[in-house]
Amino acid sequence: MNFSLSKSIEILERTPEVLITMVQHISTDWTSNNEGAETWSVYDIIGHLIHGEKTDWIPRMEIILSDKTDKTFEPFDRFAQFEESKGKSLSQLLEEFKKLRSTNIDQLRSKKITEENSNKKGIHPAFGEITLSQLLATWVVHDLNHIAQISRVMAKQYKAEVGPWVQYLKILQQ
Amino acid sequence: MNFSLSKSIEILERTPEVLITMVQHISTDWTSNNEGAETWSVYDIIGHLIHGEKTDWIPRMEIILSDKTDKTFEPFDRFAQFEESKGKSLSQLLEEFKKLRSTNIDQLRSKKITEENSNKKGIHPAFGEITLSQLLATWVVHDLNHIAQISRVMAKQYKAEVGPWVQYLKILQQ
Repeated sequence: MNFSLSKSIEILERTPEVLITMVQHISTDWTSNNEGAETWSVYDIIGHLIHGEKTDWIPRMEIILSDKTDKTFEPFDRFAQFEESKGKSLSQLLEEFKKLRSTNIDQLRSKKITEENSNKKGIHPAFGEITLSQLLATWVVHDLNHIAQISRVMAKQYKAEVGPWVQYLKILQQ
Repeated sequence: MNFSLSKSIEILERTPEVLITMVQHISTDWTSNNEGAETWSVYDIIGHLIHGEKTDWIPRMEIILSDKTDKTFEPFDRFAQFEESKGKSLSQLLEEFKKLRSTNIDQLRSKKITEENSNKKGIHPAFGEITLSQLLATWVVHDLNHIAQISRVMAKQYKAEVGPWVQYLKILQQ
């Protein structure tokens, strides 16, 4: 499957509603626990997605499409959510993510991205030149990655409860 | 986290809406492709979930709670969906799953499962004695497993499109 802006937006615009349907108003046993030391809870993951909306995808797109000579991205802070989410409920985070994503999709649509400018380049601080279409495809896969992670974090809370079925459930072995 | 009927239902009752939100009316590029030979597309997975609603979870619960002397489960057919889904659209499958799940949750609630009868046992054809609570916890984890799988199958369609980011996205390496 080749990169397509409209097919990318199909996924990006669904993610907030997918997450709300999955985890809003469920017991905190599912959303506050993680997979062990140095891992994230559902709550942490939603905070991480919010930080991405603010500092990653759209700001990087703007750099690529700008006339700047230095198109190096700011490194992304993978731990910002531990400070930024403080004092907020999961519902508040979900609503905040939904609002930011909606604005960002409007922003994305407003750029009238064509095949030509989707090949424009920026510089990733770790691995160098990347194209706009690679950035946008990564945004989509990043969403799906975290939906899968959320499913896994919740599944792990029942690891001891499934008994011998643990051997059939790949998600519990990851 | 210990087994809880109400916390299990929180997940089970959300799954149809989660799947509808994720994949109904999106391009078939996302839902008809799989991860390679001997793997399943999103369409195949929804068919598998339907077959589970019909032949797995509730029928096995009924066996456990029955007065039968032989409480051995029927083996589950992991390939039934290839025949049963034939001629149906993805939307039809999603609606069918939603309806079956709703009926099955009503059925589950009607059993008034207590701590006592959640320890009642059945015989799994492969690994022997299991309890009702293990069966029900597995039902929940099985849902989450397939939500994660659906996310992964869709993410893989963009594997070549993310460029050097492939190394950061664990979901593309599974």
